[in-house]
Amino acid sequence: MVTPVIVILLYVVQEVMPQGAVEDTFSRDLWLRCALLAARKDRRFCCQKANGFGARSLRDCAQAGAWSTTPESDRISIEPGVPRENCEFCKIGRYNLSPTIFFSATPPDDGTLCRYYAHNANYCFKLPECVSFEEGAMIEPLSVGIHACRRGGVHMGQRVLILGAGTIGLMNLLVAKSMGADPIVVVDLVQERLDMAKCMGASCVCKMEKNTCPREMASKAKTALCGMPNVSIECTGADQCVQTAIHATNPGGVVVLIGLGNTNTSAPLLTAATRELDIRGIFRYCNTWPTAINMLASKKVDVNPMITHRFPLDQAIEAFELVKKGGGLKVIINCEEPEKKEHKQSKSLEECQKQCQQLLQQCQQQCQQMQKEQKEHCGRTAGR
Amino acid sequence: MVTPVIVILLYVVQEVMPQGAVEDTFSRDLWLRCALLAARKDRRFCCQKANGFGARSLRDCAQAGAWSTTPESDRISIEPGVPRENCEFCKIGRYNLSPTIFFSATPPDDGTLCRYYAHNANYCFKLPECVSFEEGAMIEPLSVGIHACRRGGVHMGQRVLILGAGTIGLMNLLVAKSMGADPIVVVDLVQERLDMAKCMGASCVCKMEKNTCPREMASKAKTALCGMPNVSIECTGADQCVQTAIHATNPGGVVVLIGLGNTNTSAPLLTAATRELDIRGIFRYCNTWPTAINMLASKKVDVNPMITHRFPLDQAIEAFELVKKGGGLKVIINCEEPEKKEHKQSKSLEECQKQCQQLLQQCQQQCQQMQKEQKEHCGRTAGR
Amino acid sequence: MVTPVIVILLYVVQEVMPQGAVEDTFSRDLWLRCALLAARKDRRFCCQKANGFGARSLRDCAQAGAWSTTPESDRISIEPGVPRENCEFCKIGRYNLSPTIFFSATPPDDGTLCRYYAHNANYCFKLPECVSFEEGAMIEPLSVGIHACRRGGVHMGQRVLILGAGTIGLMNLLVAKSMGADPIVVVDLVQERLDMAKCMGASCVCKMEKNTCPREMASKAKTALCGMPNVSIECTGADQCVQTAIHATNPGGVVVLIGLGNTNTSAPLLTAATRELDIRGIFRYCNTWPTAINMLASKKVDVNPMITHRFPLDQAIEAFELVKKGGGLKVIINCEEPEKKEHKQSKSLEECQKQCQQLLQQCQQQCQQMQKEQKEHCGRTAGR
Amino acid sequence: MVTPVIVILLYVVQEVMPQGAVEDTFSRDLWLRCALLAARKDRRFCCQKANGFGARSLRDCAQAGAWSTTPESDRISIEPGVPRENCEFCKIGRYNLSPTIFFSATPPDDGTLCRYYAHNANYCFKLPECVSFEEGAMIEPLSVGIHACRRGGVHMGQRVLILGAGTIGLMNLLVAKSMGADPIVVVDLVQERLDMAKCMGASCVCKMEKNTCPREMASKAKTALCGMPNVSIECTGADQCVQTAIHATNPGGVVVLIGLGNTNTSAPLLTAATRELDIRGIFRYCNTWPTAINMLASKKVDVNPMITHRFPLDQAIEAFELVKKGGGLKVIINCEEPEKKEHKQSKSLEECQKQCQQLLQQCQQQCQQMQKEQKEHCGRTAGR
Repeated sequence: MVTPVIVILLYVVQEVMPQGAVEDTFSRDLWLRCALLAARKDRRFCCQKANGFGARSLRDCAQAGAWSTTPESDRISIEPGVPRENCEFCKIGRYNLSPTIFFSATPPDDGTLCRYYAHNANYCFKLPECVSFEEGAMIEPLSVGIHACRRGGVHMGQRVLILGAGTIGLMNLLVAKSMGADPIVVVDLVQERLDMAKCMGASCVCKMEKNTCPREMASKAKTALCGMPNVSIECTGADQCVQTAIHATNPGGVVVLIGLGNTNTSAPLLTAATRELDIRGIFRYCNTWPTAINMLASKKVDVNPMITHRFPLDQAIEAFELVKKGGGLKVIINCEEPEKKEHKQSKSLEECQKQCQQLLQQCQQQCQQMQKEQKEHCGRTAGR
Repeated sequence: MVTPVIVILLYVVQEVMPQGAVEDTFSRDLWLRCALLAARKDRRFCCQKANGFGARSLRDCAQAGAWSTTPESDRISIEPGVPRENCEFCKIGRYNLSPTIFFSATPPDDGTLCRYYAHNANYCFKLPECVSFEEGAMIEPLSVGIHACRRGGVHMGQRVLILGAGTIGLMNLLVAKSMGADPIVVVDLVQERLDMAKCMGASCVCKMEKNTCPREMASKAKTALCGMPNVSIECTGADQCVQTAIHATNPGGVVVLIGLGNTNTSAPLLTAATRELDIRGIFRYCNTWPTAINMLASKKVDVNPMITHRFPLDQAIEAFELVKKGGGLKVIINCEEPEKKEHKQSKSLEECQKQCQQLLQQCQQQCQQMQKEQKEHCGRTAGR
Repeated sequence: MVTPVIVILLYVVQEVMPQGAVEDTFSRDLWLRCALLAARKDRRFCCQKANGFGARSLRDCAQAGAWSTTPESDRISIEPGVPRENCEFCKIGRYNLSPTIFFSATPPDDGTLCRYYAHNANYCFKLPECVSFEEGAMIEPLSVGIHACRRGGVHMGQRVLILGAGTIGLMNLLVAKSMGADPIVVVDLVQERLDMAKCMGASCVCKMEKNTCPREMASKAKTALCGMPNVSIECTGADQCVQTAIHATNPGGVVVLIGLGNTNTSAPLLTAATRELDIRGIFRYCNTWPTAINMLASKKVDVNPMITHRFPLDQAIEAFELVKKGGGLKVIINCEEPEKKEHKQSKSLEECQKQCQQLLQQCQQQCQQMQKEQKEHCGRTAGR
Repeated sequence: MVTPVIVILLYVVQEVMPQGAVEDTFSRDLWLRCALLAARKDRRFCCQKANGFGARSLRDCAQAGAWSTTPESDRISIEPGVPRENCEFCKIGRYNLSPTIFFSATPPDDGTLCRYYAHNANYCFKLPECVSFEEGAMIEPLSVGIHACRRGGVHMGQRVLILGAGTIGLMNLLVAKSMGADPIVVVDLVQERLDMAKCMGASCVCKMEKNTCPREMASKAKTALCGMPNVSIECTGADQCVQTAIHATNPGGVVVLIGLGNTNTSAPLLTAATRELDIRGIFRYCNTWPTAINMLASKKVDVNPMITHRFPLDQAIEAFELVKKGGGLKVIINCEEPEKKEHKQSKSLEECQKQCQQLLQQCQQQCQQMQKEQKEHCGRTAGR
């Protein structure tokens, strides 16, 4: 099988770091820091999450060998997961399950925070004129919603319950809505998240408390939906929400598990069994990029309200810090085209190198702590 | 909607109890006893299980109004679950989920241990010549296997893991095998059950201990199957087996839950989610009778080895006692046609009435104990 | 199975014909005339089509025995097709295929142009406040679109080609759009129909000529869609369009056949086979009413632009004449509540009876011609 | 994506042609002749058909660079179709539809009649000990049956009608039977083919005449099946059979089109539409090799009776001649391991070269005729 590779010219690093020599060091360290910080939130797929930053997915593409940003270059978005071999999972159309998968920014890959990035051309998708770079950066989280709603079999006229109003919950809300589901009820612990959900089109929102009984919550959802949901999409990983989803769902319905919780969950599987529920797991996504681009191009979804913060590249650290603190929904590191931002290229190479040194020191400290935690985690999940 | 009803002449009671006057008392009491005994094993759907006795499903059918066993009468098997209304579940072909369902021998129905039984003709199925009454009596448990294997999407060339080698496990083995699954591995705690499974066509059997670690068991199953199972069918309800099923199943595969366990199960749903497993529940069956009759008629399955004991009707009590003790796989109360067994009609009406009196006394005692237990159970499952 | 029947009080006839005695004669004749006229357009399912008039599906519902339009009565829409028995097709959720089906206004039923109409309550659906009677009258044609798009597997981001921009084509456009399909291209012979399609949301429209080569048309559709359609929905029955649909559709895609054409169609099945197309037929609809009501209530579709003409009941003949001439898209016989239109009840009973007589005479003449044609038709389709 | 390639040592040519120098000329010519002869039967996919000879799919495999048949080499079967790029069709698991597909022995590939053959390792499958080389050679036609039965949704207890009792029809019979379909009726024009079908497990066979009316044939099939078939598998391409399949199939059922007929078929699509049939095309196969090997290894199917003739390699011409005349079902060119057949290596290089010359001359003559015919054919199918 021919593997066409596109070498992508990234404005990101070009802007900040004009010298190629420095590039490697910088990108590695920044990525490491990024991984470390993100890891605080989610230990399991830390690298993937770090990669979730807007920088990944879209940039001008130059043909291999040319390197220059010629007018003919395409604006593209890259799908991070590429199977390395055409294994049994790929052959049946579920390449996201392939054990051979390469996932951008997941070790041993250093991610896209570098000047040039080579990627399998079959997993690079042209962005139409009417889709902005920022929207393109949202294709990755949007893909989670598309994949989950597809797995859940969401379609026209179904009652849908979404548990969790974080980015993934909201993405599922947008996708379920544009697939015709109605009504859609969103449940969360935090009122301001629910306000956001309401604002983005939820038919109704329900506030949950930490100690709300799952059966009671299920009953509330039923009232809000005027019926038991046909599909419940669990985006939190909390036992309480998994239980609520199962208790709530209509016989013959589907519970989609996106949230990643504890190794073992206490769940009312007896109820699930006698109601003939389908409980379906989700791992990343597959075949979502063309659909996501279509949704953005045809204005079926508006992801812009989800971008709450924008940072220039030279404030990347602040961006990571914000995310670490749990602030914002989606934080974009805004990397405009260099010719448009020449005035910003004031930072000298020395400054950059200095910044790198600082990062390195911080990272080394954090690394030591991380290693302990990772070791413990690996023990827990080794057998998966 | 027209509801054609067939009145079925049952040889069962006719043989033992010629006087209609006695019939009602007897059948109610025997059924009650049956329910009580069966309830010891499974408190949830006690009546359904009691109904599982061979007597249910097949007998000569006379046209309503005729009553006599004319030569034109058909040999039929009845499907016990009949929806009372054409509700939303019926309309989409999942009538087993209908809240309006009538289920033979489930209260308030007294079951089929009586002389005449009226049943919806759309749920009565003719038995071809080549299917015996005993085979017909096995259509009900066979249906559980058909429904489970369908829900699991079992097909040609798939690796299947069956947890539990009781009747339901073995039925799933027979069905999965005839659908082309290969290899099929069966797991159980009891060696003699595994021997039975091996004898009925399991590619391999694995003995489990009460304290076997689910991951270890999953690993053994993988070795025995030369790969992770595409479908795992859980027939025990034990947490240990549910966990084994999830740990064992191939990414993208299916876990079918038939066994009824505790209200809450501790399950590795995180593993299930990240492997994109489908966990699918089962409630009884639908649309299985024609398929089951076809399987029996075409000799695709041989259910006869599963009938380990046969009792004449006048030893029904012994049959119930045996089942109570957990002996045998399927126990048939053999009710041959009266004209063929006239010599057996030696028992006098007085003897029958006496036997009834004894049963009644035993039942009353057991009832008191049962009521306590049922009360507790209802409390646990009220919200389902 | 219990068959709950609702007796529906129809304002329609009450308004025009206050005396019950006259009612039967009138309704039969009007229906007959309606059938005759409609039959000119489509000989196959003439009665069904006649039934397509807005009068059918929605009116105030009074509980059986009450008859009066009390404030507590519900506003409902009726689904015309009700299976008489729970046959094999019903049991698998495809009740529209049941040979036992009763279809309102299809002989021997006289249809709903009468004062009181009894209908199976399981096939009567409450209209929410926000859905008007007129919108409710559009549920029947909308159902064709829902059923077709479901059978076609239309979903988010798919390219859809619709052949024919009549009512059914436009309904499919509305439904496909609200299911997320994009882009959608509509093809027709008549420019003003295409204008209507464009107006109702088609991404692009293509004018076809009677002699346009199907391959060429397919090529134009591909250009308009920026790719071969994933789903093509054929609503004309013309050989030319069936051929275009097959030539146009992407490998692995679906062609839905709604239009009823000649007994035999010359179709490029070789192309269909080697592209692994699915060609799927449609017969009426099933399980669409709740979805349609949801779509109307949530304003996902706006069917009002399709209602091009409204007639009061006493101009019903003019309405039929208009439809006969092929004018208008959907023609509604507007039957407002009697108390609101008392001033219109000026027509005397004598006038009505006179009108009936005239109709009867016309009908008798047409009947004789029809009988010949029907005879020929029945010969052609007897073996289906 | 890594593309692992296995270089396969073919005994075939090694045996006949010891000198590598001669190999290329010979293999090209033989393949050409093979294509020419086969092309008489089927002009469309002539190369693919020529490739259908037993020689293709199984031989000892040596690691690249080693070349010698060491004891460690694996016995494998190769799947001929390998997508060159991971295109949209590959990503959804339908790689057989990929326009980038490489298909062994389809131009520009010369096929496997050569000494060494390099093939993508992901499409090479190990044969277990219990599957013979000859059985392995039957995986390709068996795959057509597996793919067709899957597309047709054949499952347990379904009535299946197979039109055509050639190799493909019989393969479908074997597969449908092992998937649990019952009864299965096979229809053909030739009595001896029907005898073969009966012998291989058809429940019943029906002889068709060239002028049998499709409706009448459908009626006969219904009688033979005791009901209308749920799935009809058309393996002839004849209009008469396509029509029979559509008239025969149960409402809601599936017609699978395998046979390749005329560019346009006259088909009763009106009947297909109003019965909600699914007409599904087939193009080669995908994901069938593991299933086929499993079926052979577990003895679910016995393909050996279909191998009616075996030729040693030096009588390959006779084999082709036989096939050209339409004799035999499957003709195998038996290529035993060289060390076992050393005594046969009597043919000198001169003789081989002479034979080649003769073949070349014959080919040149046939080529001229073929080119005319191909030209005409390409005109007909250019737009597909």
